[in-house]
Amino acid sequence: MIEYRNVRVALLGAGSVGSQVARLLLEHGDELASRAGAGLELVGIAVRDTGAPRDVDLPKELFTTDAESLILGADIVVELIGGIEPARTLVLQALQSGADVVTGNKALLATHGPELFAAAEQVGAQLYYEAAVAGAIPIIRPLHDSLAGDRIVRIMGIVNGTTNFILDLMDRKGATFEDALATATELGYAEADPTADVEGYDAAQKAAILASLAFHTSVPLVAVHREGITAITIDQVRAARKAGYVVKILATAERLTDEDGREGVSARVYPALVPESHPLASVHGAKNAVFVEAEAAGDLMFYGAGAGGVETASAVLGDLVSAARRHVIGGPGVAESTQADLPVFPIGTVRTRYQITLHVADAPGVLSTVAGVLAKHGVSVETVEQTSALQTDAPGADRTGATATLVIGTHLARESDLADTVVALRNEDVVAEITSVLRVAGA
Amino acid sequence: MIEYRNVRVALLGAGSVGSQVARLLLEHGDELASRAGAGLELVGIAVRDTGAPRDVDLPKELFTTDAESLILGADIVVELIGGIEPARTLVLQALQSGADVVTGNKALLATHGPELFAAAEQVGAQLYYEAAVAGAIPIIRPLHDSLAGDRIVRIMGIVNGTTNFILDLMDRKGATFEDALATATELGYAEADPTADVEGYDAAQKAAILASLAFHTSVPLVAVHREGITAITIDQVRAARKAGYVVKILATAERLTDEDGREGVSARVYPALVPESHPLASVHGAKNAVFVEAEAAGDLMFYGAGAGGVETASAVLGDLVSAARRHVIGGPGVAESTQADLPVFPIGTVRTRYQITLHVADAPGVLSTVAGVLAKHGVSVETVEQTSALQTDAPGADRTGATATLVIGTHLARESDLADTVVALRNEDVVAEITSVLRVAGA
Repeated sequence: MIEYRNVRVALLGAGSVGSQVARLLLEHGDELASRAGAGLELVGIAVRDTGAPRDVDLPKELFTTDAESLILGADIVVELIGGIEPARTLVLQALQSGADVVTGNKALLATHGPELFAAAEQVGAQLYYEAAVAGAIPIIRPLHDSLAGDRIVRIMGIVNGTTNFILDLMDRKGATFEDALATATELGYAEADPTADVEGYDAAQKAAILASLAFHTSVPLVAVHREGITAITIDQVRAARKAGYVVKILATAERLTDEDGREGVSARVYPALVPESHPLASVHGAKNAVFVEAEAAGDLMFYGAGAGGVETASAVLGDLVSAARRHVIGGPGVAESTQADLPVFPIGTVRTRYQITLHVADAPGVLSTVAGVLAKHGVSVETVEQTSALQTDAPGADRTGATATLVIGTHLARESDLADTVVALRNEDVVAEITSVLRVAGA
Repeated sequence: MIEYRNVRVALLGAGSVGSQVARLLLEHGDELASRAGAGLELVGIAVRDTGAPRDVDLPKELFTTDAESLILGADIVVELIGGIEPARTLVLQALQSGADVVTGNKALLATHGPELFAAAEQVGAQLYYEAAVAGAIPIIRPLHDSLAGDRIVRIMGIVNGTTNFILDLMDRKGATFEDALATATELGYAEADPTADVEGYDAAQKAAILASLAFHTSVPLVAVHREGITAITIDQVRAARKAGYVVKILATAERLTDEDGREGVSARVYPALVPESHPLASVHGAKNAVFVEAEAAGDLMFYGAGAGGVETASAVLGDLVSAARRHVIGGPGVAESTQADLPVFPIGTVRTRYQITLHVADAPGVLSTVAGVLAKHGVSVETVEQTSALQTDAPGADRTGATATLVIGTHLARESDLADTVVALRNEDVVAEITSVLRVAGA
């Protein structure tokens, strides 16, 4: 039997994921070769500093600082540098040279995806990116291949492990946001500067990638509405649990129709109330999960580790074996598919349910005033719960200056109407304070 | 732009899944064509009786009873007849004629998989079978492609919706097995003859398919150990919940090493205790979920609808679009990969944890006798809980003939040792009755 020549693999970057990819390639070479139909030869690892300490002990002779030369001799280039430059230039060079590229670079894909896919298409190369969203969890290929015959309606993803860890700690241990963040940092779940995670930037990149793939439409990162979790209080988390909800920060991609009947999509990241019975509510710690609602398939969920060097390396190696199979047999990879080309709607177009908590004067007519404000803005009330701050309802008790807490659950309402409602409520004399406005998802 | 010619699709069978596949193909033709890169033309539907009533209204001129002629004119044959014959003969004919085949036929794959894959390989055709396991849930492709670079250690699947519905009803509503089965039948979750579901035959077929794919080894159906849920009592379910477990029937595929250090695999189906905190414990109703443990990726779970006409049609159409893409661009499909060729071990080789519940004489020395039997067979005890049937422990109370309940949790033990232990315990005078022996999974 004639054996297919080795497929030459160049690795760019040897951080926590890259070093594990190199280790597994070297250790499990024979097993991977038998699955790919050809040997996978790691021809080199390009790094900035060949002498830097690594997580894993790797053969010194593999390291080089000359990424460009390494790329030119490769069939498949694995980019695990992260960030925009020099990753973007190197990936473009690799694709233009005809090499297939495997990347886990969410920032690059979310900001320069169309450019990279176009470069790949021009020479018939392929760009694989399973590792870019939700780490080890297979989600890109299921969306691209398994659900290719279905219409995806909505995706809700817990795609950032750091923030899920923080919210879970607040929920399960009663920690404040600050304490939970400190624990996350201590345990290595959060970086020294946690902004990218807690402000939702990381999740927004993943939302852009998921929305683009699911709706066959290019969704640019700037079109993703983004809110982080820094304003989430332990009181909100406790009140949520009391009402049967868990607070989760979700990356949501949704197909919707605007008021003119125009079809489009929305991509957004914000903390939301998820019913306790919803599968996403049981996703604890730093785990990730992507919940997919499709017209025919119904509800699906993909659950697993969203980060970690060796976990994410699993996704990279899956792509690598697929890319190698394509070298041996030919055929399609994970091309971008933007033929639907739907408009991306701003957040104001989105319709969702809300829970509004406010302190009001505990006096007759207040509820009617508040309800009037909602009605005027077209926001329909589903539930109201009023808790009086006074311990007595005895007739004749002095109620001057007393306040009550109102928790209002709305039916589906437009984001823009809700925003107007909140402003109008603030201007009402009977409203002392609006303490919480949260969206409800999955109910 | 020159358009690729239509890809000709022949459908065999128009039952609940087949009729939905036909409907979606006809309704969403343009959308599917743009994803596949070619039109998908439904050239005919072969059925036994063209006049039989259908779930969906489909054009009469598509129906034929001549499956063989239909196959000869097709690029892709979708087999949704089910059962062994005539499905086997027709699928072989299709593959031998060079057509790619999409099937949801678990019985056929579990019993004749190697024959079909060999026929496909001979002519370079492809066999797709996402719909054969866990209905709408993408699991075949993630195992085949996304995890191609990883080593799967264990798969535990809730892959039969009927039995999960029954066990869930017993757990959540306190129904007996008989009542839960009656409800399942009433609601259409169970068939008139529920044997295939409640005795685990259906799950065993899926276990064989999953084990073969995950371990790159041909696992025949006869090698799958199988136990159903007909013997599960409401008392067992209640006691499990009290101890922090839920009873689930699991299809398990596991990589293991026997006592001679030989590597092999095991495939088995049985009801087991799953800790409440395990993701599989939250899978309710007729939903399915497949939990995958991989060396690098860690724990993953795939969740969704395991049955249903339109849901399963989603998986069929995903395969159909993939097959069509392959016709346009060429390249690999979902070939069998049996290069590991590991031995399949019998159930006796498996090591798992057990929970044994027994009634014993409530007398001094009994616990030591029972513990002695376990120790003699190499079964190590992790937890023991003893509940006295007497309401008083007052000194001098008459304890003659009194019994106590012992609940013993073991460490990992060999199936064969455990079986010997149970026989030996039955022979002990102090043991009045062994009321429950259940395995513990996922802990």
